[in-house]
Amino acid sequence: MANEKLVQAITSMNEDFAQWYTDVVKKADLIDYSSVRGCMIIRPYGYAIWELIQKQLDERFKETGHENVYMPVFIPESLLQKEKDHVEGFAPEVAWVTHGGNEKLAERLCVRPTSETLFCEHYANIVQSYRDLPKLYNQWCSVVRWEKTTRPFLRSLEFLWQEGHTAHATAEEAQEETQRMLNVYADFCKDVLAIPVIKGIKTEKERFAGAEETYTIESLMHDGKALQTGTSHNFGSGFAKAFGIQYTDKENKLQYVHQTSWGVTTRLIGAVIMVHSDDNGLVLPPAIAPVQAVIIPIAQHKEGVLDKAGEIKERLAKTIRVKLDDSDKKPGWKYSEYEMKGVPVRVEIGPKDIENNQAVLVRRDTREKITVNLDNIENSVSQLLDKLQKELLEKATAHREENTFKVQTMEEFEDQLNKKQGFIKAMWCGDVECENAIKEKTGATSRCIPFEQEHISDKCVCCGKPAKSMVYWGKAY
Amino acid sequence: MANEKLVQAITSMNEDFAQWYTDVVKKADLIDYSSVRGCMIIRPYGYAIWELIQKQLDERFKETGHENVYMPVFIPESLLQKEKDHVEGFAPEVAWVTHGGNEKLAERLCVRPTSETLFCEHYANIVQSYRDLPKLYNQWCSVVRWEKTTRPFLRSLEFLWQEGHTAHATAEEAQEETQRMLNVYADFCKDVLAIPVIKGIKTEKERFAGAEETYTIESLMHDGKALQTGTSHNFGSGFAKAFGIQYTDKENKLQYVHQTSWGVTTRLIGAVIMVHSDDNGLVLPPAIAPVQAVIIPIAQHKEGVLDKAGEIKERLAKTIRVKLDDSDKKPGWKYSEYEMKGVPVRVEIGPKDIENNQAVLVRRDTREKITVNLDNIENSVSQLLDKLQKELLEKATAHREENTFKVQTMEEFEDQLNKKQGFIKAMWCGDVECENAIKEKTGATSRCIPFEQEHISDKCVCCGKPAKSMVYWGKAY
Repeated sequence: MANEKLVQAITSMNEDFAQWYTDVVKKADLIDYSSVRGCMIIRPYGYAIWELIQKQLDERFKETGHENVYMPVFIPESLLQKEKDHVEGFAPEVAWVTHGGNEKLAERLCVRPTSETLFCEHYANIVQSYRDLPKLYNQWCSVVRWEKTTRPFLRSLEFLWQEGHTAHATAEEAQEETQRMLNVYADFCKDVLAIPVIKGIKTEKERFAGAEETYTIESLMHDGKALQTGTSHNFGSGFAKAFGIQYTDKENKLQYVHQTSWGVTTRLIGAVIMVHSDDNGLVLPPAIAPVQAVIIPIAQHKEGVLDKAGEIKERLAKTIRVKLDDSDKKPGWKYSEYEMKGVPVRVEIGPKDIENNQAVLVRRDTREKITVNLDNIENSVSQLLDKLQKELLEKATAHREENTFKVQTMEEFEDQLNKKQGFIKAMWCGDVECENAIKEKTGATSRCIPFEQEHISDKCVCCGKPAKSMVYWGKAY
Repeated sequence: MANEKLVQAITSMNEDFAQWYTDVVKKADLIDYSSVRGCMIIRPYGYAIWELIQKQLDERFKETGHENVYMPVFIPESLLQKEKDHVEGFAPEVAWVTHGGNEKLAERLCVRPTSETLFCEHYANIVQSYRDLPKLYNQWCSVVRWEKTTRPFLRSLEFLWQEGHTAHATAEEAQEETQRMLNVYADFCKDVLAIPVIKGIKTEKERFAGAEETYTIESLMHDGKALQTGTSHNFGSGFAKAFGIQYTDKENKLQYVHQTSWGVTTRLIGAVIMVHSDDNGLVLPPAIAPVQAVIIPIAQHKEGVLDKAGEIKERLAKTIRVKLDDSDKKPGWKYSEYEMKGVPVRVEIGPKDIENNQAVLVRRDTREKITVNLDNIENSVSQLLDKLQKELLEKATAHREENTFKVQTMEEFEDQLNKKQGFIKAMWCGDVECENAIKEKTGATSRCIPFEQEHISDKCVCCGKPAKSMVYWGKAY
């Protein structure tokens, strides 16, 4: 066994959450570092999770009428500057290409941090008549933002994402689209990632550069910190005016289009880790698990064991993603390894099990053991995967509820965050001064003005003036 | 009808092949230009073709044991320089990032032109023992090469591709992998793109920067020019030595790994256009056609026509990608539009057809019309698609055979290319001087030393010295 890689213990999340996170992404073989500062290598296991996320999101985009396109990786500086707010938001954090081959470029190109400007230029070219609308485009690609401090999946210099960009004839249609895609994201998080999210509107301070309104889904991590999980922006006609995207309507009048954009990133993998995983490593919802069940033969040298394990694999492979590990490592080692990798269900089968026409199923999340009959093991495993998927969501929802606190005063606000982090629900007057003061005092930022409003008090938690809305606050990644 | 986009005639390919090509990519809505020099926007219809190519290639990669990963978009200058031949080949044609945000970087980063150096650095990190081998990785991404003159799909500043990178314990395994992937490409071209290819080895002059041997598939375009359609490289241990990628073998000795890389690009779409398409626009093999059949209702205002067309659509949709165009354009307009877009089969159905329980199928490639019974129209359409896929390959193969010429002297060589372009088969002594002389005299480059050798004469076509091998030559894209 000397050459086998040890499955080493990882830092406990209670001891050091940040180190625990880093241990999980490394030990579960999700990423590796490279000599490129702030950029990560997504390893096969991590990329397989991303492929499952992509596939299921892409299906939902196509079902809602969207088409994929590909835009250039570069944006000329003059194009980036066309929309004033947008360039102010992004110019400080882009990578600049100044030389091509051995020549200095006449105009610098930035590596796309987001592609609004490219889509707008294209729409100005291809949209003439109301018959050309709506344009419902999406792009899967990588983008670059020159971040100072980075963490795998959560904040990196380069990351993978999708960016939807749409153009509509009316403001109403753009508003519908903005909300439709927010709902697609929220449903995806719930049904696929088993992560419950709060849907709401960003305050003006937290709005996307160039947007009229930014909608967001926010989720709560295991350590009580918030994570912005996806955003959907309504641009109104701002970009259309800057880029001259006009169409002739049915009355033959020139009108500006109304636009939206929306995106989620590889950050979703970070959310999955920080919501579901534990001190034994990754815990994956079955819907995005590259291996949904792993079969571990016990005493595999004994006659019939590997044959039976192979037979079960073939049967399970008809409906789920299954792997048989018949390597010469000891079962205990294999258990730790697949626990680290978050494989939802382990199937143990040894000579005694075969004698009794049974196998033992072990859940990754609860480690519960269930003995099942081999005759209908396909159903047993599938049902267990469904149950696990459902219960991960229930557990995450319960955790969020337990860690969501209502406060009425700044004292309560600060006390709560000193005691235990979580979502803070508090009333707000709508002034950015209060938002800034809260951040300065508590470190918490406004996460969103949720669609589901509650009345906690009449007064702004910060200034005491009449409150306009209830806001979710939290320290955020 | 005033507002409808006219389906304009395109330049004839015999008149001006280059203009015909540009017309097809634009008028079939495959690409659009942007203000980024040499970069193309791949529009929904073009991207849908790429998605079908990706999906079917990716399946073949996974069936042969490969896993997908994602590497950073940037390569630090010092990393690019680690392998001497490699940097010499690529440094003159890369884009350099010199600034991040507002700061000048201590070290320049290039936007990846290819990712050997990143994979090598990663392999040096993760490969320790023979148990870690082989590593069979692939990446789907975009790369940038600072080309002076560009053409959509064929040569652009940025293009989409996949790059496979593998590491093996032995030279034999690396050699097997190099050839395995060349065969995967060749079979894919034949079975999916309906393009026959010549498999062979590149001469030293045409070899990839840093490779010990480069294998290639070469195809012949409609205008008689050759297109390098995919390459597979055996690196031997060159990169492993430069990057220190070593493993301990079973006898506990340190050994260098043996590596390969292989790639195909969006250029495949260019090949499909230049092999199959015609003066009416694009012709797509059914296997990569985003719409395999389009249903055009005739006299659709008459009772029952749209109902019947809708019913047929539902039935066909169970097995193929089908679209019903019930817009208010005239049928003739629709015919031209879908011919331009290369939809393989058109289904016409009008009141008389319904009366006779029939529909008319029209092949895009030959424009042949076939009347079929509605009862088993699913089978009729599927069989026609299979037939079309097969016959496109036959036609392309016949075209290539008709345009492949054997020559024994330089005079014949030049005469042939002046008369009609095509593949030239001629003997070669193996000296780069003759290769250079041939290029200078005729404009043709060595395409490959084919696996299937023929004996045309004993002498090199250029110098008359004893020939080592028969080589395919041609003017190339």
